[in-house]
Amino acid sequence: VTYDKTGHDDALERHARLAKPAGSLGRLEALGAQLAGIAGTCPPPVPEPVTVAVFAGDHGVVASGVTPWPQEITAAMVSTFAAGRAAVNAFARQVGASVVVVDVGVATPYAPSPAVLRRNVRLGTADLSTGPAMGLDEAVAAFEVGRQVAADCVAGGARCLVTGDMGIGNTTPSAALIGALTGRTAADVTGRGTGIDDDMLVTKTRVIATALARAAGLDPMGLLAEVGGLEIAALAGYVTGGAHAGVPVVIDGVIALAGTLVADALDADVRPHLIAGHRSVEPAASIALAHLGLDPLLDLGLRLGEGTGAVLAVPLLQAAARVLSEMATLDEL
Amino acid sequence: VTYDKTGHDDALERHARLAKPAGSLGRLEALGAQLAGIAGTCPPPVPEPVTVAVFAGDHGVVASGVTPWPQEITAAMVSTFAAGRAAVNAFARQVGASVVVVDVGVATPYAPSPAVLRRNVRLGTADLSTGPAMGLDEAVAAFEVGRQVAADCVAGGARCLVTGDMGIGNTTPSAALIGALTGRTAADVTGRGTGIDDDMLVTKTRVIATALARAAGLDPMGLLAEVGGLEIAALAGYVTGGAHAGVPVVIDGVIALAGTLVADALDADVRPHLIAGHRSVEPAASIALAHLGLDPLLDLGLRLGEGTGAVLAVPLLQAAARVLSEMATLDEL
Repeated sequence: VTYDKTGHDDALERHARLAKPAGSLGRLEALGAQLAGIAGTCPPPVPEPVTVAVFAGDHGVVASGVTPWPQEITAAMVSTFAAGRAAVNAFARQVGASVVVVDVGVATPYAPSPAVLRRNVRLGTADLSTGPAMGLDEAVAAFEVGRQVAADCVAGGARCLVTGDMGIGNTTPSAALIGALTGRTAADVTGRGTGIDDDMLVTKTRVIATALARAAGLDPMGLLAEVGGLEIAALAGYVTGGAHAGVPVVIDGVIALAGTLVADALDADVRPHLIAGHRSVEPAASIALAHLGLDPLLDLGLRLGEGTGAVLAVPLLQAAARVLSEMATLDEL
Repeated sequence: VTYDKTGHDDALERHARLAKPAGSLGRLEALGAQLAGIAGTCPPPVPEPVTVAVFAGDHGVVASGVTPWPQEITAAMVSTFAAGRAAVNAFARQVGASVVVVDVGVATPYAPSPAVLRRNVRLGTADLSTGPAMGLDEAVAAFEVGRQVAADCVAGGARCLVTGDMGIGNTTPSAALIGALTGRTAADVTGRGTGIDDDMLVTKTRVIATALARAAGLDPMGLLAEVGGLEIAALAGYVTGGAHAGVPVVIDGVIALAGTLVADALDADVRPHLIAGHRSVEPAASIALAHLGLDPLLDLGLRLGEGTGAVLAVPLLQAAARVLSEMATLDEL
């Protein structure tokens, strides 16, 4: 992983010379500098083509009553992604991004499709409220799936990676991981996910408190195994792989942030390559963003996952890069 | 102007049936409903092609020391827009929008260009700190320029209009108009514009207080003449024309909002067609947004104008429309 401080500083210096008041492009000026630092050159190339990888996995914890949605929805959504008919597909088409669907741990059978990479490590996790979600070897294998997907995407031409996820019940392991890695309580990190009622929120908070108690003292990979999820482990690997391949990685909501916290804990060099696409309404998302020092580009009240918030931020990255190469300077006026 | 409440409600009902948790697309669900209301059909068409009209004018008030920038920059930027080398051009290319440059009141000569519509009503306003900025007939003429540009853009195929502006000194008349139309004081509405120092801020606040005192009791068009600007009058006409042509109008920062407040005061039917692209850092922008009941899509600390913040919001509009037609429903899962 290399981050070019010279490219970063050159971009800030160039922004001061462009035909506009200094600082008038606000957040996009720092973003452009970050893209120059990642690319190792100023002006940075416009980050394209863009790939959104949607990692799917199931969660045994659904048996504990943390979500009203049946587990079968995960597999149904995998088929919906493959058919190009989910929200993330529509948004990806809007911004010119490709969608890759990766089954890392879907429990329910679904019709095979050439649009789905089957990298299933196991048929969903065990119930993390009563024991480890998976074995350490399985967490490592799922992480490796994500790392390899990132490497393959960049080898195939992608110059910007976007995180996506699908997994009924996955805000529960995500909140547990974020709580464990930031030292927060179950009450701090537990949210309503897709929109659960007050009774279910009590149950979910209790499950997460149990998970946090078991998580004490574990290293990041151990945490993934004990209280994580297969798609979250893959996201951790994907973020790591994207950073090592030298491209910007756009982070979606609370699930992606859980994986990103693990990636960051394993390898501090990952962080300069991260761009937070949006602020999810989940409380654990804001806790993770603050821990990572990330200032999200969008705040639209989204809580869908799939990569929807991150993919919507892609044109902002591209615009931030583009002004650095296409604008006149004050000298030229 | 017609806004189709049935289309609006149909979109909300459709959102509840799409393959996602209810409400999980947050702000984009209301936006999609608004686009359906504007289009008069659900699902709404993706709003494209998109035109950004950049209205340029000069301001006699620069003689009173409200900005450090020389007036000649307005003409220089008109040529920069025409050459496609300003920030708004780069952003417009990113989102696939066209840029139209309209000289409504530039004071300094510049090389004629086929890329600039010359609709100059007068060579800049008079100094509004000592008397009326322009005559009522000139305000009406500038308004009409904007209204006609909007009508021509839509006749030429545009299905979404974005406001843009250029005019050294134009945050001063904008703040005065916003103060007058919302009942706020000079201290409330005066900001640092492109980044003025403390001494200049004192001068600017005093100038705006003088203007507000003279503005008392004037009707909206009278306000444009007394304390407004030529490009602001044109923006008021453009917003009105876009709404009457039945397309969404994406509003940029404080200059566009000043024109939009005038348009809204003249014709209450305009408001349902308005979409706030972003929240400018200028204090008067937030005051105008609150008065209009608009919730901006982006908040990136921009204070450049030109339409830069509004054009960056265009992919969000398009994504909000697109999900309504391209997503599977829960029944189909």
